[in-house]
Amino acid sequence: MDNKLMLMIPGPTPVPESVLLALAKHPIGHRSGEFGTIMAEVTAGLKWLHQTENDVLILTASGTGAMEAGIINFLSPGDRVLVGTNGKFGDRWAQLAEGFGLNVERVTAEWGKALDPEDFRTRLEADTAKDIKAVIVTHSETSTGVLNDLETINRHVKAHGALIIVDAVTSLGATNVPIDEWGLDVVASGSQKGFMLPPGLGFVAVGPKAWEAYATAKIPRFYLDLGKYRKDAAKNTTPFTPPVNMFFALQVALKMMQAEGLENIFARHHRQMNATRAAMKALGLPLFAADGTSSPAITAVAPVGVESEKIRSVMKKKFDIALAGGQDDLKGKIFRVGHLGFVCDRDILTAVGALEATLIELGYDGVTPGAGVAAAAKILNETA
Amino acid sequence: MDNKLMLMIPGPTPVPESVLLALAKHPIGHRSGEFGTIMAEVTAGLKWLHQTENDVLILTASGTGAMEAGIINFLSPGDRVLVGTNGKFGDRWAQLAEGFGLNVERVTAEWGKALDPEDFRTRLEADTAKDIKAVIVTHSETSTGVLNDLETINRHVKAHGALIIVDAVTSLGATNVPIDEWGLDVVASGSQKGFMLPPGLGFVAVGPKAWEAYATAKIPRFYLDLGKYRKDAAKNTTPFTPPVNMFFALQVALKMMQAEGLENIFARHHRQMNATRAAMKALGLPLFAADGTSSPAITAVAPVGVESEKIRSVMKKKFDIALAGGQDDLKGKIFRVGHLGFVCDRDILTAVGALEATLIELGYDGVTPGAGVAAAAKILNETA
Repeated sequence: MDNKLMLMIPGPTPVPESVLLALAKHPIGHRSGEFGTIMAEVTAGLKWLHQTENDVLILTASGTGAMEAGIINFLSPGDRVLVGTNGKFGDRWAQLAEGFGLNVERVTAEWGKALDPEDFRTRLEADTAKDIKAVIVTHSETSTGVLNDLETINRHVKAHGALIIVDAVTSLGATNVPIDEWGLDVVASGSQKGFMLPPGLGFVAVGPKAWEAYATAKIPRFYLDLGKYRKDAAKNTTPFTPPVNMFFALQVALKMMQAEGLENIFARHHRQMNATRAAMKALGLPLFAADGTSSPAITAVAPVGVESEKIRSVMKKKFDIALAGGQDDLKGKIFRVGHLGFVCDRDILTAVGALEATLIELGYDGVTPGAGVAAAAKILNETA
Repeated sequence: MDNKLMLMIPGPTPVPESVLLALAKHPIGHRSGEFGTIMAEVTAGLKWLHQTENDVLILTASGTGAMEAGIINFLSPGDRVLVGTNGKFGDRWAQLAEGFGLNVERVTAEWGKALDPEDFRTRLEADTAKDIKAVIVTHSETSTGVLNDLETINRHVKAHGALIIVDAVTSLGATNVPIDEWGLDVVASGSQKGFMLPPGLGFVAVGPKAWEAYATAKIPRFYLDLGKYRKDAAKNTTPFTPPVNMFFALQVALKMMQAEGLENIFARHHRQMNATRAAMKALGLPLFAADGTSSPAITAVAPVGVESEKIRSVMKKKFDIALAGGQDDLKGKIFRVGHLGFVCDRDILTAVGALEATLIELGYDGVTPGAGVAAAAKILNETA
């Protein structure tokens, strides 16, 4: 059966009908008063979602574009930076930073393990000359389903005085990222994740210490020059033509999020993560990220005795459910279940039920039919 | 009356209903076979539209982002470049190029006049050392409604051997830009113009000589690194999450364009330009660009004895027609009528009729009621 796709990948995530219909509206001029009103409203909504009074700037770019802007606007070639690398995205930011001439020092953990905040503390404390200008951390590592301990790492960065630049692409809107409370300097994210939107917009929250660094930062930039976006945002406009239809959609999505409330949104993601993890355990499927280090946006599973890619293929063909595969070295070794954005409890039961049927079809040993759904339902009922 | 806006600005341009409905489809995974099929189809369609066998790469970016990619991927700091400047966008590319450390020499004409190809010839012929690495030209200068003589300028560039980098943001899909026939190395454009799409995608066509330059070009880049897009496009995928809904829309828009045919599309834009210009003359409104140098995408008008901003305001308030104003130094001095993309002959008559009524309301001397519509209709009838 066609046209009944269910997205359970970590982006694009499902989009509510009201948001899709907003996308389908006729465009308006981006230099009009009407657009200015929308820009003012979505900017206020973004500050609410980011829990900040800092600037939250909107780019026509993917999450990588937003993260690049978050790095190149505040640093100069030769600057020493620490980059946490425990997955594909951490690796990407290290490569990107090197490409722009930064002096990159990787703080590494095995893929599937969380970064150790002590590794950051040690290096930062040893840097008595205050050479380290910034620490770049991926909060939720989408490639492995690991949530790094941003709060503790940030505390060590604050004690040192370097900037902290955070990839919150799959954590923002899924778990608590209190920018002002923690004092996060730069936080980047993308629309196709917790925002319940299609891809096409990137967001960068920028605090006062980062703007101080901006004043002397020397990496060249134009399209991603956040100073231009800040200046124009103050007049409720943008330096370059914005994707106005995505702004209509953002306006609707932010209203939905405000109606649900931040606490409820975070609780929903955590409940669905716990339910998904409980189901995997009940089905005898090993989780790739250990308890206590798992992302509320995505659960990575490393099956033994049954091939990940076969599971993904049957799930897609028989049930039209899209799961994500492993990336780079993890290709074929894991599958990943997204539970991010516009996902309700029913979707978790659906995906787990289909996964049970798939495992049985693939002849996987040790599946107790119904055990996964039962385990998920128990968690959902207990914590809803 | 609300919600009946008619866009007659040079972007965003009107979007067909079928394209809007494609935008409203549920997203799919961008690493899926289904997306690969769409990517292959739109890439073929883009090559058709660009009249080229070169790569046509798709970015999540505005036209400025596409143009930045077209510049920074093929040059190194210190490289000498000629930049044609006769409007806001030419100025922007000169500033951008300087920001990335290029040695910029401006080839200038007054705003509202076309660049003189002889100015390029003289400088290129004088450069016997072949120091000039690239010539950057805005084809249709959106800020003034001037179409620069790209064909002749390009001939001088070809005789010299430098790269030509073209801003075709408001010319592509409006007038002939035969990339392979002319041998244009880099051509950048954006979705919200001739493509009949909302803003959100940028396009860059890149030829073999530009790829040779890419191999040694040293301006740092990551998100806008076109080599990454080329490598992934060969596998019908993208290096960073693409705006999948915009790809659905692009697929529909390209099919519509193919059904109409390139010759018909260009003829329609030229006919509507001529009709608009004839109407302005009949209404006694001075055209900002002289005959023979006017853009088929946009007509700029410099009224005398009546304020541009008052015209725009009445047109918007009474008739819900959005016209563009002047930019930078031209603010308040001109208004601009977009006739680009999904615009039919009826729209021209509508806009001219409303303009007549507006001029009469504003007490503008010398309007013969009906003269504008009659002049436009004559051209439309003669050449349709």
